[in-house]
Amino acid sequence: MKVKDVVELVLLLNGGRKFEKTCDRLIEGDWEQEVTGVVTTFMATVDVIRRAVDDGYNLIITHEPTFFTGSDRLDWLESDPVYHKKKALINDNQISIWRYHDHMHSGITDLIYAGLLKTLGWESYLETNIPLPHCYSIPPTTLMDLVDFFKNTLRMEVVRAVGNTEMECSRIGILVGGGSLGLGVEEMPAKLMNDEDLDVIICGEITEWTLSAYVRDAAALGLNKAIIIVGHERSEEPGMKDLADRLQPLLVEIPVYFSDSGEPFVYL
Amino acid sequence: MKVKDVVELVLLLNGGRKFEKTCDRLIEGDWEQEVTGVVTTFMATVDVIRRAVDDGYNLIITHEPTFFTGSDRLDWLESDPVYHKKKALINDNQISIWRYHDHMHSGITDLIYAGLLKTLGWESYLETNIPLPHCYSIPPTTLMDLVDFFKNTLRMEVVRAVGNTEMECSRIGILVGGGSLGLGVEEMPAKLMNDEDLDVIICGEITEWTLSAYVRDAAALGLNKAIIIVGHERSEEPGMKDLADRLQPLLVEIPVYFSDSGEPFVYL
Repeated sequence: MKVKDVVELVLLLNGGRKFEKTCDRLIEGDWEQEVTGVVTTFMATVDVIRRAVDDGYNLIITHEPTFFTGSDRLDWLESDPVYHKKKALINDNQISIWRYHDHMHSGITDLIYAGLLKTLGWESYLETNIPLPHCYSIPPTTLMDLVDFFKNTLRMEVVRAVGNTEMECSRIGILVGGGSLGLGVEEMPAKLMNDEDLDVIICGEITEWTLSAYVRDAAALGLNKAIIIVGHERSEEPGMKDLADRLQPLLVEIPVYFSDSGEPFVYL
Repeated sequence: MKVKDVVELVLLLNGGRKFEKTCDRLIEGDWEQEVTGVVTTFMATVDVIRRAVDDGYNLIITHEPTFFTGSDRLDWLESDPVYHKKKALINDNQISIWRYHDHMHSGITDLIYAGLLKTLGWESYLETNIPLPHCYSIPPTTLMDLVDFFKNTLRMEVVRAVGNTEMECSRIGILVGGGSLGLGVEEMPAKLMNDEDLDVIICGEITEWTLSAYVRDAAALGLNKAIIIVGHERSEEPGMKDLADRLQPLLVEIPVYFSDSGEPFVYL
């Protein structure tokens, strides 16, 4: 089976629709290459690529960019040693890297959220009165217990939070990855919090002048509001783990594994 | 002295230039109000406003938004209780809030950087071969000592870092606030790091798919690279502290103080 055949199967997983304008491209490699093994990951970092090479897997399906901008543009990297060393690592070892982002979020379902919900065990808490999987009603708990739940489930040593850390909560929003920046509308997360009467939003990326400012003021004014920031990678990696499980039965003789790219940060 | 007179004096601090398109507006209050005292702050949060009210100061000069978007738009806040409660707190106590952002960054100098450099004691380390105050050559140190220096100087309990935490460093970049998002060019920080041969960049805001991804890969490839993320508020607050010192001599009989809006996050 060739790279192009695997990619066709992956696209069928979410309904087979194909976007004309998309960042989902073959970033490196060859559509005609015979696939020896498939790695799914949040990001094809140098460490993820090295593990794939060591294991003899030659196709990496990455959710996020390989080359440090949203669309993997190369025009600014001509004289950059990080780019050239990483490209040599990829090319010397005949690795193909295919980006699976837009088609993963948009199709029959959002497969990143689907994987996260499975990991959290929250499928039954999803509110279906709004079209996107952003709102959940969970059994009442405390914010600190919710923090512990996310730290344990997503294997994090530290999370950041804003707002009322003493509160109880049951109406929870989840905005994974860059979604908590608002998907092009910077007030979206704060508006969602008010419109859907959310106590807490679990966030991927944030900026300090939008949702986090809103929540800090809300808590200072006595409203029952907080955010828990788990970050882009930790919130989306479970979707890439789940993708490996979905893909293996379809590929039969080609092995598939999930490679955890890991949280980028250390807390010092 | 009225609000409009104080604002004219503030604008003169950075050369008196006035932009036509700017977020620097009177967000709440009255240009004709007699000023009883001036508060400078990174963000006019509910807590900052309450302190001003308690102290009898009625003009707040805020660097960042009061109402949770970059341009303090109100169209989405019509039925929002956080907005209405905060607005009532401001209006009931006859507080004027003026935003001082664009004119502070652009004029004779960038007054946010000027205040940060004074706080760090890094004025003499500035590289003047590029037009913006982004690059510094400091006496060689270790990354961990640099982390401790920033934690102590900016009074932080935790900072996040990416890259090689075992390294030595002397070529340091600083991109405060939203600048580390690239000022509209998402590859700018990584390109700066390569072009100026920086070992470390001190960051305000970040996203996980741009500079932090670049630095993680750079370190994995053996390059001497790291970032230290102090955040938007901590990197820009010293500029607002310095503004109070610059402003007091000009206002003579009107008292001025700096109100630290504080880091928004707790690390749990």
